[in-house]
Amino acid sequence: MFELTSFFKPKSIALFGASTNPNKSGYKLLQNIIDHNFEGKIYPINPKGGKILGLDLYKSIDEVENPIDLAILYVPSSKAVQIIKDCIKKGVKAAIIEAAGFGEVEVGKKLRTEIREITENFKKIRILGPNCTGITFVEKNGEGLFSSFIPMGKTKAGSLAIVSQSGFINGAYYPYFTSMNPNLGVRYVITIGNKMDINENDILEYLIQDDKVATIGIYVESFQNVRRFIALCHQARENHKKIVLLRSGFSPIGSKATNSHTGALAEKSELIKAVIAQSHCILADDFWDLFNLAKTLSFIKDTQINPITNPAAGVITISGAAGAIMADWSYKYGVKIPVLDSDTYNKLAKLYPPWMPPASHALIDYWPAVEHARGDYQKVLLDCIDIALSSPRIQAIFVAAYHNATAWKVDWYKLKDIIDKHKKPIFLWLFGEKSDILEAEKIFQDIQIPLFHSEREIVCTFKKIVDFQNSRSSFKL
Amino acid sequence: MFELTSFFKPKSIALFGASTNPNKSGYKLLQNIIDHNFEGKIYPINPKGGKILGLDLYKSIDEVENPIDLAILYVPSSKAVQIIKDCIKKGVKAAIIEAAGFGEVEVGKKLRTEIREITENFKKIRILGPNCTGITFVEKNGEGLFSSFIPMGKTKAGSLAIVSQSGFINGAYYPYFTSMNPNLGVRYVITIGNKMDINENDILEYLIQDDKVATIGIYVESFQNVRRFIALCHQARENHKKIVLLRSGFSPIGSKATNSHTGALAEKSELIKAVIAQSHCILADDFWDLFNLAKTLSFIKDTQINPITNPAAGVITISGAAGAIMADWSYKYGVKIPVLDSDTYNKLAKLYPPWMPPASHALIDYWPAVEHARGDYQKVLLDCIDIALSSPRIQAIFVAAYHNATAWKVDWYKLKDIIDKHKKPIFLWLFGEKSDILEAEKIFQDIQIPLFHSEREIVCTFKKIVDFQNSRSSFKL
Repeated sequence: MFELTSFFKPKSIALFGASTNPNKSGYKLLQNIIDHNFEGKIYPINPKGGKILGLDLYKSIDEVENPIDLAILYVPSSKAVQIIKDCIKKGVKAAIIEAAGFGEVEVGKKLRTEIREITENFKKIRILGPNCTGITFVEKNGEGLFSSFIPMGKTKAGSLAIVSQSGFINGAYYPYFTSMNPNLGVRYVITIGNKMDINENDILEYLIQDDKVATIGIYVESFQNVRRFIALCHQARENHKKIVLLRSGFSPIGSKATNSHTGALAEKSELIKAVIAQSHCILADDFWDLFNLAKTLSFIKDTQINPITNPAAGVITISGAAGAIMADWSYKYGVKIPVLDSDTYNKLAKLYPPWMPPASHALIDYWPAVEHARGDYQKVLLDCIDIALSSPRIQAIFVAAYHNATAWKVDWYKLKDIIDKHKKPIFLWLFGEKSDILEAEKIFQDIQIPLFHSEREIVCTFKKIVDFQNSRSSFKL
Repeated sequence: MFELTSFFKPKSIALFGASTNPNKSGYKLLQNIIDHNFEGKIYPINPKGGKILGLDLYKSIDEVENPIDLAILYVPSSKAVQIIKDCIKKGVKAAIIEAAGFGEVEVGKKLRTEIREITENFKKIRILGPNCTGITFVEKNGEGLFSSFIPMGKTKAGSLAIVSQSGFINGAYYPYFTSMNPNLGVRYVITIGNKMDINENDILEYLIQDDKVATIGIYVESFQNVRRFIALCHQARENHKKIVLLRSGFSPIGSKATNSHTGALAEKSELIKAVIAQSHCILADDFWDLFNLAKTLSFIKDTQINPITNPAAGVITISGAAGAIMADWSYKYGVKIPVLDSDTYNKLAKLYPPWMPPASHALIDYWPAVEHARGDYQKVLLDCIDIALSSPRIQAIFVAAYHNATAWKVDWYKLKDIIDKHKKPIFLWLFGEKSDILEAEKIFQDIQIPLFHSEREIVCTFKKIVDFQNSRSSFKL
């Protein structure tokens, strides 16, 4: 798999379809590469010639004297065959084809066949795509190789890798999620599109050998080779990497959609389920869930939290109602809310008024304690969290807290100290005025505590992570 | 039920427990009332006397010469009995007890019995609470009666009413949701707490007679009288009011929690399910879902969209992947994605390149059309939506759109014209850089298009609304 390095760390790039028109994607793609300080040489190519973004445009790859590691094709599909021929002649070993038009319609099938022939079944050149948005490789904060044609901001370097058969991730959804979660460090976003040559398994094999990758999120519309996929997932476990998987095409129309979209072959839903069961990935419900799970795992990893194998959580809420709803969802998903051990109960009871002692279970409504403490909101909330996490029966806590930066100010950074002390995660749902919440979100990014919107989401995310940990310790290689 | 008017439109309020200390809730409660321009007289009462927020403090209710319509008690539970006695003597007909401490512990039971006796089973005075955060009645934008002790911003007047057995709604969760959705017009937020006297049925009976109420969201931990609840839900239908219901306590621990929280009696989960089935409410998963459903119904109502009884939706996405995931969830939830009629297909096909024609089903990936239109993003997106909504087979559309205010500017107000033309709803999932999304959210508030986070959420919300419409047309009174 060493040849894949040319895709991520090329010393030189030829960009076919570079456009001098700032409204065109062929311009934006080049700007993305330049804006993110790509360290190698860039050769924009367009038969019209001229200058673009301070660089000379080459009329063809023949005009480039130096060797080229990676070719990026942002050209109509009809032009791809000739360009790939030119690249082979030039000795280029890696090409990304971003255009669509190689799918299930007749003309697309013909193009695929031609490319397979001229590349001698991809021996002469490796191809990523077509119908993709290239690669983002965040080598250091905000810098690296950003080859999507959708303008992207700076993202933090980190340990998350995303592999996606869909292009919208790299440039549309990924900037959305990372701009909302600026402390989510990312290393790779790789779109494989129609996977004419390189598929999810090739990428996975590469990623699980990268020491800097901790969590891998995968979106696929078809499995290229299920046995290899399962084996690679097991290998990922050996290398301490977590995998979150989103698989579309379970339904007849969904499957038809993926077929027309990336030419994926329909697989029986039973087969898909068997693959998922054997690969021991965390299964995501949709893109929001995929990124949310990946974020939660990344934050847990980065904050050095111990793995959880016992689905026993404490619930701390400003509202008995939110606690009751979380208890209902916990029951449904198989999360235990334990009876408090007497030590923990006694510590909590000291915070509570006699007319409203704490519950016997780890279902802690902290509001009566706030009233009892005559409004010392911060102390009561943090004490409850600290006491709950001290209990050996509690592996994590779900917190539903009200935030009011004026009336009930809390120094949320103190939560970080509590997490560091106990090495157990907090799943937080924070509500209050929008302006207060937006400010607080920045702090939770800093201290890497994941925020959620709802009771169901918290319980479901926690349970998926615990099940994943448990499947890892039990499955056989 | 005419006596309930004193709770919502009192001409005078006595506030027991008003505090001169700005950090105390007894101060914040008064400030909330004053800040929202309560039109009647306010008599803050505290045995210490003095002045507060420009008003004279009365040492007792006896010192107030004028009649009092509503008493609000923000005092420890131990003081409630004497104050209620004083209120009866004064001739007050309505009281809100916000304090907790009347629950399942022995001392609380004793207080409840005492109050029941001195009020002659609530004949002499009606009581809301205890253990609640009072009432918000938004008579006009930002003004009315705001009686929570949690500071609240201005909210828009509208047609949504919330009834909650939990206090955290009125002051913690409700300002969160309305500050995120400033165009969600609200008329009432009523917390009933332990419902010592007034219960959800009493409130429901009042609300369904208010012509300005269109949607009612209810959170309960127990049903006071299931037959009456079901009958009132049927009455609500006659009066064209929609009801979204969240019921906690399905699980053993959740039920235990509600019992200790508001003294709710545990009901068998089967009974709860039967009540829900017969009441034909929309059942919410959690508080997020409750408010999200209420918002969606309110927006649909306000934008005069026709009711939908056929669960047939079109999907328009920038990404085949997001479309495939929505198709999977649609299959799971029973939403139909129809085959396009030839007229609609032909109109769409004109927008698409020959190498990537539209799909035969209403699963519309608009990106190839954007490429074909050489980047006229706005025109393609709006045309696709307009064409899809024109189809008689499509009752609503799910849109997953990329928003980039710089590179692909869209005048989202044009969507409003399209909705007005077709009278069919759009369920929108928008992604892009956070700053762009926050700006766009304001526009979608203006034009009342509900935004969602994920594929699952969109499909689930749509299906719940359609099922509700269908159950309404079929159920017998």
